[in-house]
Amino acid sequence: MTLTAPSTLPERVLEHLGTQRPRLLEWLKDFLRIPSVSADPAFAPHMDAARSLLLTRLQQIGLHKVRLLDGGGEPAVYGEWIGAPGKPTLLVYGHYDVQPADPVERWHTPPFDPVEIDGRLYGRGTSDVKASTTIALETVAAYLAVEGACPVNIKVFLEGEEETGSPSMRTIVARHSALLQADAVLSADGGRASPTLPTINVGARGNAQLEVRLQTADKDLHSGRYGGGGGHALHEMTRLIASLHDEEGKVAVEGFHAGAETLSTAQRADTAAFVYDEQDFFASVGAAPHGEAGYSTRERITLRPALDVNGLWGGYAGPGGKTIVPCEAFAKMTARVVAGQDPGAVMRAVLDHLQRRCPSGCKLEVVAFHEGSPASTLRPSHPLVQAATSVLERECGRKPIHVRLGASVPVTALFKEMLGLDTLMFGFNLPDEDVHAPNEFFRLSSIDEGLRGWTLLLAALAEQAPERFHAEVSRQASTGL
Amino acid sequence: MTLTAPSTLPERVLEHLGTQRPRLLEWLKDFLRIPSVSADPAFAPHMDAARSLLLTRLQQIGLHKVRLLDGGGEPAVYGEWIGAPGKPTLLVYGHYDVQPADPVERWHTPPFDPVEIDGRLYGRGTSDVKASTTIALETVAAYLAVEGACPVNIKVFLEGEEETGSPSMRTIVARHSALLQADAVLSADGGRASPTLPTINVGARGNAQLEVRLQTADKDLHSGRYGGGGGHALHEMTRLIASLHDEEGKVAVEGFHAGAETLSTAQRADTAAFVYDEQDFFASVGAAPHGEAGYSTRERITLRPALDVNGLWGGYAGPGGKTIVPCEAFAKMTARVVAGQDPGAVMRAVLDHLQRRCPSGCKLEVVAFHEGSPASTLRPSHPLVQAATSVLERECGRKPIHVRLGASVPVTALFKEMLGLDTLMFGFNLPDEDVHAPNEFFRLSSIDEGLRGWTLLLAALAEQAPERFHAEVSRQASTGL
Repeated sequence: MTLTAPSTLPERVLEHLGTQRPRLLEWLKDFLRIPSVSADPAFAPHMDAARSLLLTRLQQIGLHKVRLLDGGGEPAVYGEWIGAPGKPTLLVYGHYDVQPADPVERWHTPPFDPVEIDGRLYGRGTSDVKASTTIALETVAAYLAVEGACPVNIKVFLEGEEETGSPSMRTIVARHSALLQADAVLSADGGRASPTLPTINVGARGNAQLEVRLQTADKDLHSGRYGGGGGHALHEMTRLIASLHDEEGKVAVEGFHAGAETLSTAQRADTAAFVYDEQDFFASVGAAPHGEAGYSTRERITLRPALDVNGLWGGYAGPGGKTIVPCEAFAKMTARVVAGQDPGAVMRAVLDHLQRRCPSGCKLEVVAFHEGSPASTLRPSHPLVQAATSVLERECGRKPIHVRLGASVPVTALFKEMLGLDTLMFGFNLPDEDVHAPNEFFRLSSIDEGLRGWTLLLAALAEQAPERFHAEVSRQASTGL
Repeated sequence: MTLTAPSTLPERVLEHLGTQRPRLLEWLKDFLRIPSVSADPAFAPHMDAARSLLLTRLQQIGLHKVRLLDGGGEPAVYGEWIGAPGKPTLLVYGHYDVQPADPVERWHTPPFDPVEIDGRLYGRGTSDVKASTTIALETVAAYLAVEGACPVNIKVFLEGEEETGSPSMRTIVARHSALLQADAVLSADGGRASPTLPTINVGARGNAQLEVRLQTADKDLHSGRYGGGGGHALHEMTRLIASLHDEEGKVAVEGFHAGAETLSTAQRADTAAFVYDEQDFFASVGAAPHGEAGYSTRERITLRPALDVNGLWGGYAGPGGKTIVPCEAFAKMTARVVAGQDPGAVMRAVLDHLQRRCPSGCKLEVVAFHEGSPASTLRPSHPLVQAATSVLERECGRKPIHVRLGASVPVTALFKEMLGLDTLMFGFNLPDEDVHAPNEFFRLSSIDEGLRGWTLLLAALAEQAPERFHAEVSRQASTGL
């Protein structure tokens, strides 16, 4: 095993990045002011604006073939610099779309007007993942500005559908597979797992999505005329949803855990090695741990599958009361699947469970069903992991701990399947930054750490032979990790 | 027992009402165009407009002491004609507020722009209860216009808070109890139970209201970071709500049925005598019967208590998906209580049930708790029932069937408790008219039937000695019916 720390520090690039920081921060704020919410069609013009901003910046940086890659949905933004023959080619992945800002009334500052407060930058998309995306782009920009070259070949690929499950990514990658040939992926998405310890992500849970509608009558009924007699969508829906978990919080759906590997001694040791205050983890967000018996919280949220109802509604939600028997109810849910599981099969098991229990006289309809992507795994001996390990060890003075993400990054699985590429997640966000929630923020100090980390990582990767990445991929595939 | 059919038909009054019908219908439409939604403070100006329209009309009719009766909430509209010494004084009750029009998108015509289609008048408030209120007012108007007098003394009392549980009615009645002295109440609210059979309402279920908020974390959490680990408001809320009923649909809350009398043989016979197609009743609204075992649908919805969740929501309900663990969820519910039950105690039992089951680490808060009013009962020998029976028998050619309302009319109980008055419900709506739901309507033919019915009823009541109403009240109170 060869550790791959860069032989010399790229001092001039780091120095240049220091001088560029104020300009870079202003550009990031411009990026954050664009409400590029991919989930809601009403935000389409802002998605266009985000792409325009990125196209302009990629051209300014000096990338070539700057363009949109269309797959029928939100196009990806692309640009490349291929001037390092014999060196690895890295597909640099980020995404320019963000989650909806709802509930907007719970933000303390406007979600799309970034504000610096006490060393933090607040705004939707700061942590997930516009800041880390900007760090990656500006590192490449700095190399090209100072050295006229990057230590490795770079293909920048910025997605616009990460927050909606990447519905057209498969088409984009299929249409542009020649352009996207590379040796590995560096992802700006997928962040650090601890504010105190250096960590490297070596995997992520996969996901799948389901939305159902339950109808119990043609119309809302007067509760005085029908109450106690039947046709009650919320009574039936709560009964259906409550049946999805047992009392301890384990998913009670037959077939939901199919394929999930029993945790190995090594996995349990890795999880335990990660210094992690279980009480504090939930207490810091005002919640209590609650989940599958026989597993630690860390294991539950990274190594075990989960089923989450993300939204449920029916009947009257306005001021005062309304004496109705509601005729319909909706539930949105997502599954997190682990290595060895087929996300489509897992979610079909959930749907079967609901359909089997749907009482006669009620209709259960599928509003949306997305298979998502399976879990991903990166072996510790992988050159991507080794390069990141050497960089973080030099920067932090200690060996990084290998952790897994509980969240899903669907494109990671897709890049592996369609392009044969492994992905290193090298984002610089931290777990307490309220991604997908009100008052999302990113630490300003993480910008400096990120720029330094990416600069060193590109230099470290330049010392790897391109074929090593592919050899490792094949080996992983054959062992099924 | 004296039947009290009017000795002669008030032909001239009925004739006059025929000529007034087009004008009366235009006035009703003006009334319906005012969106007098009492539940939502945003509609306050429209509540004012509805009161202005009514004040003007009561003055035109020739009532005296026309004014607003204020109790700190929505004032009631009042006017009287006291020109029939020795005759009974009837408090004519109606309400000018309506339910919210939500979900507005499911209306086929604008809810506040009444439209006549195939013999029906569509619009929010047509059936509940602006048309029946108009029928009562215009009957009085016709007597005064044609005869210069009514056969009985009339005190018109039009409430503005019926749809919100009458929060200030108690104050209004207490402040104006001298003005409101009468012998009985005639209510335009509470309609006919069958489109084919004459019916008289001899009681109604009472009600109570509860809204709770469940909090499981300080903020929505990323389902990738926390999913499977805890803090899930919708998982907990659905479990709590599902526990309120057993699988058959019986309320599973300890103490919920306390005080509810066992159905008597007479009650069961009455219910069975009411020709009633149980299959069709729910099939006609696309629903299936589902409820407490051992009772017919008719018994479940009129003679047994019920608990209905009217609204439930939490998490993300917008387009697409949002991968969160929601931190809070809300549920609105109402109870329907029967004779012998204390509505406050019943709803406290529900709250206790929820609080006892609320998992540690979660907070259950009461957003709203309204005790509502107990059930009401009118004996068959009551002069109000006898007068109505005689009128309906003459008009329909058969003896009316005595039925009970599943819905609550809180003021009925309040008039009895505070003023010692019994109420006859003599509204002319029908059960299929989608009250509290989209596409509410009222049959245009019911306007003619209602005007004739009210004209004859006032004449029939004029033949009763005032003291008979009070004697009957006392007897009821002592036997606890």
